[in-house]
Amino acid sequence: MKLSSKDFLGLENVSADEISYILETAKDMKKTVNSSMKKVNYLQGRSVVTLFYENSTRTRVSFELAAKYMGAQAVNVSVASSSVAKGETLIDTGKTLEAMGTDIVIIRHPQAGAPHLLAKNISASVINAGDGMHEHPTQALLDMMTIMEAFGTLSGLKVAIIGDIYHSRVARSNIIGLTKMGAQVNLFAPSTLLPPGIEKLGARVFSNINDAVADCDVVMGLRMQLERQKKCLFPSINEYARFFGINPENIKGAKKNALWMHPGPVNRGVEMTSTIIDGDNSVINKQVTNGVAVRMALLYLLTGRE
Amino acid sequence: MKLSSKDFLGLENVSADEISYILETAKDMKKTVNSSMKKVNYLQGRSVVTLFYENSTRTRVSFELAAKYMGAQAVNVSVASSSVAKGETLIDTGKTLEAMGTDIVIIRHPQAGAPHLLAKNISASVINAGDGMHEHPTQALLDMMTIMEAFGTLSGLKVAIIGDIYHSRVARSNIIGLTKMGAQVNLFAPSTLLPPGIEKLGARVFSNINDAVADCDVVMGLRMQLERQKKCLFPSINEYARFFGINPENIKGAKKNALWMHPGPVNRGVEMTSTIIDGDNSVINKQVTNGVAVRMALLYLLTGRE
Amino acid sequence: MKLSSKDFLGLENVSADEISYILETAKDMKKTVNSSMKKVNYLQGRSVVTLFYENSTRTRVSFELAAKYMGAQAVNVSVASSSVAKGETLIDTGKTLEAMGTDIVIIRHPQAGAPHLLAKNISASVINAGDGMHEHPTQALLDMMTIMEAFGTLSGLKVAIIGDIYHSRVARSNIIGLTKMGAQVNLFAPSTLLPPGIEKLGARVFSNINDAVADCDVVMGLRMQLERQKKCLFPSINEYARFFGINPENIKGAKKNALWMHPGPVNRGVEMTSTIIDGDNSVINKQVTNGVAVRMALLYLLTGRE
Repeated sequence: MKLSSKDFLGLENVSADEISYILETAKDMKKTVNSSMKKVNYLQGRSVVTLFYENSTRTRVSFELAAKYMGAQAVNVSVASSSVAKGETLIDTGKTLEAMGTDIVIIRHPQAGAPHLLAKNISASVINAGDGMHEHPTQALLDMMTIMEAFGTLSGLKVAIIGDIYHSRVARSNIIGLTKMGAQVNLFAPSTLLPPGIEKLGARVFSNINDAVADCDVVMGLRMQLERQKKCLFPSINEYARFFGINPENIKGAKKNALWMHPGPVNRGVEMTSTIIDGDNSVINKQVTNGVAVRMALLYLLTGRE
Repeated sequence: MKLSSKDFLGLENVSADEISYILETAKDMKKTVNSSMKKVNYLQGRSVVTLFYENSTRTRVSFELAAKYMGAQAVNVSVASSSVAKGETLIDTGKTLEAMGTDIVIIRHPQAGAPHLLAKNISASVINAGDGMHEHPTQALLDMMTIMEAFGTLSGLKVAIIGDIYHSRVARSNIIGLTKMGAQVNLFAPSTLLPPGIEKLGARVFSNINDAVADCDVVMGLRMQLERQKKCLFPSINEYARFFGINPENIKGAKKNALWMHPGPVNRGVEMTSTIIDGDNSVINKQVTNGVAVRMALLYLLTGRE
Repeated sequence: MKLSSKDFLGLENVSADEISYILETAKDMKKTVNSSMKKVNYLQGRSVVTLFYENSTRTRVSFELAAKYMGAQAVNVSVASSSVAKGETLIDTGKTLEAMGTDIVIIRHPQAGAPHLLAKNISASVINAGDGMHEHPTQALLDMMTIMEAFGTLSGLKVAIIGDIYHSRVARSNIIGLTKMGAQVNLFAPSTLLPPGIEKLGARVFSNINDAVADCDVVMGLRMQLERQKKCLFPSINEYARFFGINPENIKGAKKNALWMHPGPVNRGVEMTSTIIDGDNSVINKQVTNGVAVRMALLYLLTGRE
């Protein structure tokens, strides 16, 4: 099976079959991540560039390690220390990287749609590592992989996503991906942090956390992106934690074996209490490992196309 | 044939034969850049450090990829995030890198002559990746390679260089290299951006763009280095673009098959209109590819010396 | 022989036998650093992350090259450009890196004890690359290696350490290591830069430089960490250089063949005159080479444990 596109820009145009195929491939890749010989040659002689217009050590390192474990040459370009600031357009930057022999450009950009613009204009593969408030599809893949590891399937599961939905590309990609795979997604957020019309993506919106998590298989927190918070959308961190943070008390209604997830890094005591983060049901570190695995799978499948 | 120096500091002391030899070698290297197996072992076990005292993603990534395609270990040192700021002298920094086993130091520095000072004081090879307003010899090599690809020779060609000649190490290296290879170089610039006595390098200065490009085989724009512009050397960006920018109208007099070149990144609409940049005669992206190829060739030839 | 700990956090809990064993291993590694084939496969498939909460190009590059010479995948995380700033705790960061498959985390941190906290909470190996004013054990290892190269032993030698002892983790690690190996350590510092009770570590404190260096086999300067100098602890740089700087005059009393050492980068004319730095007895560049060798040895021994 081949992926239908040279790029991986979002889960919107990826079929359920393709998602399953990527997750299946990631299972194999995970063996490498967990071994003491983290080096395979599938991407030997290929060149991968991370082009990050926003800081994110965690995602950048995950992709960089994925590329290196696969035997690729990985080069980092971050905008702060970059001539991109010199007024080069995104497309020109992409064409330059491509002209240097880059096979895959992994881009993070504050503007929604930037990866798509790039993908249309270069023949190298483009992976969206997060674009504005739009999508962060590899995060959703790793979340789905983590859930499938626990339950064997996504179909029929109930997943509650709690927190700042409005600014969250993670939430958006997960809603799209999970509903596509047959799961039900419940949302709970401060009303100011809930995008109007989000139900159209197939999710259900709840007005209190107890209803949102009731009988759920998964409770997923979202990072409170304080730096993106341009306006005063909630009174204070403390009140946010109290009314919207995840704690043992307010998720009692979830299933006994429910997974507790978070894309990380967690603001401890804000989105989740430490009891949750470090609890037995927490799979936060598994999510990180699976992140490397799904990225390896993507690199593999995208270069295997040709 | 061996290069006569352990270093590559500028085109001033490189013979026409050496330039031809490097360009010939680069032709071979280019096959690797264009392949899906961008990995040869010529520099395996060698260590290459990019030591950049000025930001330049484009040049740094080009050298880094060249080193990695050759199988070398490549390490980046950029001054912003570096203890070089702690008051270490350039020579001490070079000796430290050499003592760590570095075979080749690729240096970019705001002061003219810095690479030469370094080269004199360490036994590792030094490549000048741009020093002040002095030279940027690998850029000139890649430009010459690009021109030779189109015309098979440099001898007898007419090359017009348009723009901020004064601050341009690219222009300087190209004038030296192209005249050495038998080409004629025409210059056109705002009078405040034309260094007095530049004719001594063998170039001809023109007072209007039409005369400068007349019958030329190549029209090369230069980046308007706004950040280097300490004084008001021209009235405004708009007027610069109007009177000194390259557009289809003012280069009508060039040859039909003339190449349109720019070292990049281009300020679109300033040094060149998009019609030129994206036009059929534009070889800007080829220049980028050839940049990796000439740098691979240099790394190869410099380490092969021993 | 195996190291007793999965981590290398300081010389306090490392035995003399272990130090000897590491230095012996480093001798072998040094052959690789000095060769034109700086690539062995001892760490192939292993993943090493440098996690630096303070800038230090010299130490970071030394570790990065050591890792690459050993065939490991090396990834840099520096805090300035990092989401660590987003409020992630140190332990969470470490667990994230570990979950990505990282085998060894090399950490530099402004707070004493940070590497120990990390080591206790992850199963990956942790190497202390400098923690606050506490220890910088790989620096002491490379210093000991350099001294042993000259004299064949450390036992019975007299080593004078001159300068800002108070802020120096290098001094601290050297005092611990050298006395453990049977050397005598003499200290001389401005009284404001001498930690009270330092004699308890086994060193002798002197009140003038002539007495401190008398009959010494080694005279070691320390970097004046101007950036750490929060208060006015000495009148001026000039006076510091005059009264506490190392120059040919004030170390006359040391042995004829005494080594002159400095961890670098040296503030020329402050801690040492150029006559000393560039003199025949100076081993400053050898220290740098040995730094790569001892780090390779450590990476080798720590991964060989399993």
